[in-house]
Amino acid sequence: MSDERAIGVFDSGMGGLTVLRALRDSLPQEDLVYLGDTARLPYGTKSADTVTAYALQATRQLLRHDVKMVVIACNTASAVAIQPLAKQHAPLPVIGVVEPGARAGVAATQTNRIGVLATESTVKGGAYARAISALAPDVQIRQQPCALFVALAEEGWGDDAIAEAAASRYLKPLFDDPGTAPDTLVLGCTHFPVLAPAISRVLGDGVTLVDSAATTAESVAAALAEHGLATNDRSNGTERFFATDAPERFARVGGLFFGSPIDATAVELVDLQLT
Amino acid sequence: MSDERAIGVFDSGMGGLTVLRALRDSLPQEDLVYLGDTARLPYGTKSADTVTAYALQATRQLLRHDVKMVVIACNTASAVAIQPLAKQHAPLPVIGVVEPGARAGVAATQTNRIGVLATESTVKGGAYARAISALAPDVQIRQQPCALFVALAEEGWGDDAIAEAAASRYLKPLFDDPGTAPDTLVLGCTHFPVLAPAISRVLGDGVTLVDSAATTAESVAAALAEHGLATNDRSNGTERFFATDAPERFARVGGLFFGSPIDATAVELVDLQLT
Repeated sequence: MSDERAIGVFDSGMGGLTVLRALRDSLPQEDLVYLGDTARLPYGTKSADTVTAYALQATRQLLRHDVKMVVIACNTASAVAIQPLAKQHAPLPVIGVVEPGARAGVAATQTNRIGVLATESTVKGGAYARAISALAPDVQIRQQPCALFVALAEEGWGDDAIAEAAASRYLKPLFDDPGTAPDTLVLGCTHFPVLAPAISRVLGDGVTLVDSAATTAESVAAALAEHGLATNDRSNGTERFFATDAPERFARVGGLFFGSPIDATAVELVDLQLT
Repeated sequence: MSDERAIGVFDSGMGGLTVLRALRDSLPQEDLVYLGDTARLPYGTKSADTVTAYALQATRQLLRHDVKMVVIACNTASAVAIQPLAKQHAPLPVIGVVEPGARAGVAATQTNRIGVLATESTVKGGAYARAISALAPDVQIRQQPCALFVALAEEGWGDDAIAEAAASRYLKPLFDDPGTAPDTLVLGCTHFPVLAPAISRVLGDGVTLVDSAATTAESVAAALAEHGLATNDRSNGTERFFATDAPERFARVGGLFFGSPIDATAVELVDLQLT
């Protein structure tokens, strides 16, 4: 049994390429189709209704490429749209990044105090807090919106003095009181792994950073096995990239997140409002 | 003669409220209708075709409120969409922010060296460089994209140490060689006036910052007079606010740019894709 259809992955833009990278590393034989809704990014400051509508359009576009599974590689969209998506397209497996991130955070904490760093709308929606509480009701959760991290990551300034200054300003209040300080921080936005080294320098040892990209890839592998959807018959899968705007910028900034250069001429432009 | 119809103003989001504030200050008797396309902001990283399509939708929405003039309070949209807009809706007067900003920059420079700070797509489009060159062919122009300034302004971090560090990193290369350093910087994004104090602290005296909001208001006043469209019969005009998403955030962040609190319950939600 080998299902050679591709796995579809979408995000508001390029940040989800950190998830694509984790999928490429752990599932080298799978074909991957990635869609970045760059014409309408960011989702993180938009309402739940708007983000859900955009996520439904993105999924319809991926299904045109006959994908066997959809991965929502965007925390904001995972938080608000996973249930409507899964319901509308059942039995298609739909995997988000929130649940795997919450699970990894719960596994990592020793003190039962977890901090969640995310965009404003992810924090406001409270999806991580709900997912963590459902797994471990005793865990104390503190959320911190970190809007500037997105811009810093996209500017390529994710690992220097300005990133440290921003991290310090956002995070210090969480660590002021050792009696309530978390020992684990979940990076609840796919842009944020780029800032992990700067965040670690600010916080020092003793705080574990959880990047949901790797744990999401594990969830995808498990779902492929569970549904008998894995590709087994070849060694190397391919990646195909779609963007709703500005393929050149997608390729340039996206390379920062994917960890390998992306060829701008291979990024295909698509209009979701027409699908 | 008094034309009591409102002036329509649109922007990708809240930054254009710096222009609305200048209009309110200089034309207190005019009614103002402001539309922020918050569901699709920012425009500054999107392509010319996409931004033009969005600007045409925004203008159609404003015309439903019977506006007598349209002000494009967004540098990106002014740069790429003013001609298609003016052509499609002639003889409706359409005023952008680029031409007034370029004119003010040319008037301010003593050394004939002007720097333009803007978003990536405004810089790439080159509209300021063209507008300045058309007015003063001898002026040397250097452009600098400053993407992080948008996020800093929206986070309310526009006037502190992190803003200074970002300004220093963006601007120092322009001033390294005194023989080519500009004496005038045009703030080519409506978000950037919020950062003017931090920029001035980095650059010290001797560099003039040109904020196009005030000069745009002058252009609007001149166009009202020229076309016999001014309101003369009352003392206080009103403001009406529309946003395509997240009215609460529009009001909260918008207050930073408008300079006065905005009542979130008075911000009306509108869907441009249906207009």
